[in-house]
Amino acid sequence: MAGTDRTSLHLSAESAPETTPESTVDGPAMVLVGPQIGENIGAAARAMMNGGLSDLRLVQPRDGWPNPKAYPMASGADSILDNATVFTTVEEAVADLGFVLATTARGRDQTKESVTAREAAAEMRRREAEGTRCGVLFGPERIGLTNDEVALADAVLTVPLNPGFSSLNLGQAVLLIAYEHFQAGSQAEARSINLTGSRRATREELFNFFDHLESALDAAGYWRTEAMRPTKVRNLRNVLHRADLTEQEIRTLHGVVTALVGRKREAL
Amino acid sequence: MAGTDRTSLHLSAESAPETTPESTVDGPAMVLVGPQIGENIGAAARAMMNGGLSDLRLVQPRDGWPNPKAYPMASGADSILDNATVFTTVEEAVADLGFVLATTARGRDQTKESVTAREAAAEMRRREAEGTRCGVLFGPERIGLTNDEVALADAVLTVPLNPGFSSLNLGQAVLLIAYEHFQAGSQAEARSINLTGSRRATREELFNFFDHLESALDAAGYWRTEAMRPTKVRNLRNVLHRADLTEQEIRTLHGVVTALVGRKREAL
Repeated sequence: MAGTDRTSLHLSAESAPETTPESTVDGPAMVLVGPQIGENIGAAARAMMNGGLSDLRLVQPRDGWPNPKAYPMASGADSILDNATVFTTVEEAVADLGFVLATTARGRDQTKESVTAREAAAEMRRREAEGTRCGVLFGPERIGLTNDEVALADAVLTVPLNPGFSSLNLGQAVLLIAYEHFQAGSQAEARSINLTGSRRATREELFNFFDHLESALDAAGYWRTEAMRPTKVRNLRNVLHRADLTEQEIRTLHGVVTALVGRKREAL
Repeated sequence: MAGTDRTSLHLSAESAPETTPESTVDGPAMVLVGPQIGENIGAAARAMMNGGLSDLRLVQPRDGWPNPKAYPMASGADSILDNATVFTTVEEAVADLGFVLATTARGRDQTKESVTAREAAAEMRRREAEGTRCGVLFGPERIGLTNDEVALADAVLTVPLNPGFSSLNLGQAVLLIAYEHFQAGSQAEARSINLTGSRRATREELFNFFDHLESALDAAGYWRTEAMRPTKVRNLRNVLHRADLTEQEIRTLHGVVTALVGRKREAL
């Protein structure tokens, strides 16, 4: 993610493999067929902007368009609502697209490929890299797409969820698809760490701290028997290795040991 | 996914590699710290049930608990609200957990690992397979978690989204995490197809149809010159191979060719 100050834990961004083709066209159009509730159109716009999408298409929205009820739920994604396009038929709404998916939770009596949201996102990224514009159809709330509308699509998109409770509202369905499309093009590192201005400790710095700690424990008679020392040293060193310390944290720990030794001396 | 009639396109469920460890404990607890709006608690419960989660914990909900405003937004996930547990402090709410993540959109001045929602889901699945109970902290709407609350967690969880528009409401944030946790344990096939009672055509059935089609085109003088025949045949066969036909569809196509030949004869 550009603009963050995170440092990669495992791979620098430069050496990370480039697995995601760069798109030469915009992300998929979200095509809402017969949406009934203005607030849901607003929530869909917000979800689109979360995922970096912008092309909202409405087919015969029940309450007409523009609909002022959409704006509060868009939470600032007004530009998507302002630029939404309205169509009379699904055929017209998808006419310029080269790859179309139909969202549906139910099994359909059609011999049509079904892809998960994650696979759909990867497939759309591949096709966008070819220069193909993509789109996703969403049916009216509660009713869903008709079989004839599903037949207009290249494949069916399903979202794997709890089989006993898989219903999503329109905004949530758009969010999951926009989120997956964003992930499929994201260079965000799965793991990263904010080193807060410090840097990872060197081995030498770590070994110096081991010496400090173990000498203090020698002086304190911590080991009980000399025979137990090697095992206990290894255990302590493993804890400290696992903590993956920064140079600043090593200095903090030196101070902790020094303070504890000092307090112990005072207590004597 | 159990209970569906989908047939695998590439791998049967039996032969699919088992890459996801089975959990020996329930999915992560969703810990809402100081939630302000009852409707958001309901939306969070709905999202949890979508992702198969059940352990909802509330730390000092602003309007007390139970809150009747939560129920309509839960859309039937009432059992999660009924079984929600309420705590006075975050420390108490996470006391029995072995791995805790803090959601935050903002960079933090703490040397703490940051993981994406997807990586967090995989990490939680691994730890659940070890028998470790996990949890995710969500801060109050608009305010988020305090630095001291973030410090109680093992790592920070971030959701990669449009950097210019990354704010999610509480229900959406819970949905994305519950969704990712579900995906990390899901055996759903990325691609599948409903063969609607038929089966894939055999090569022999396909070749028989090629013969039928190409003989009809021979009779119709489609090739113009015999020299063009091999290329055109290859092109047509490639189209039909790509369509990945079922036995039923082959029969339909035989009927189409027969009908067209018949109509042509009538037209002569």
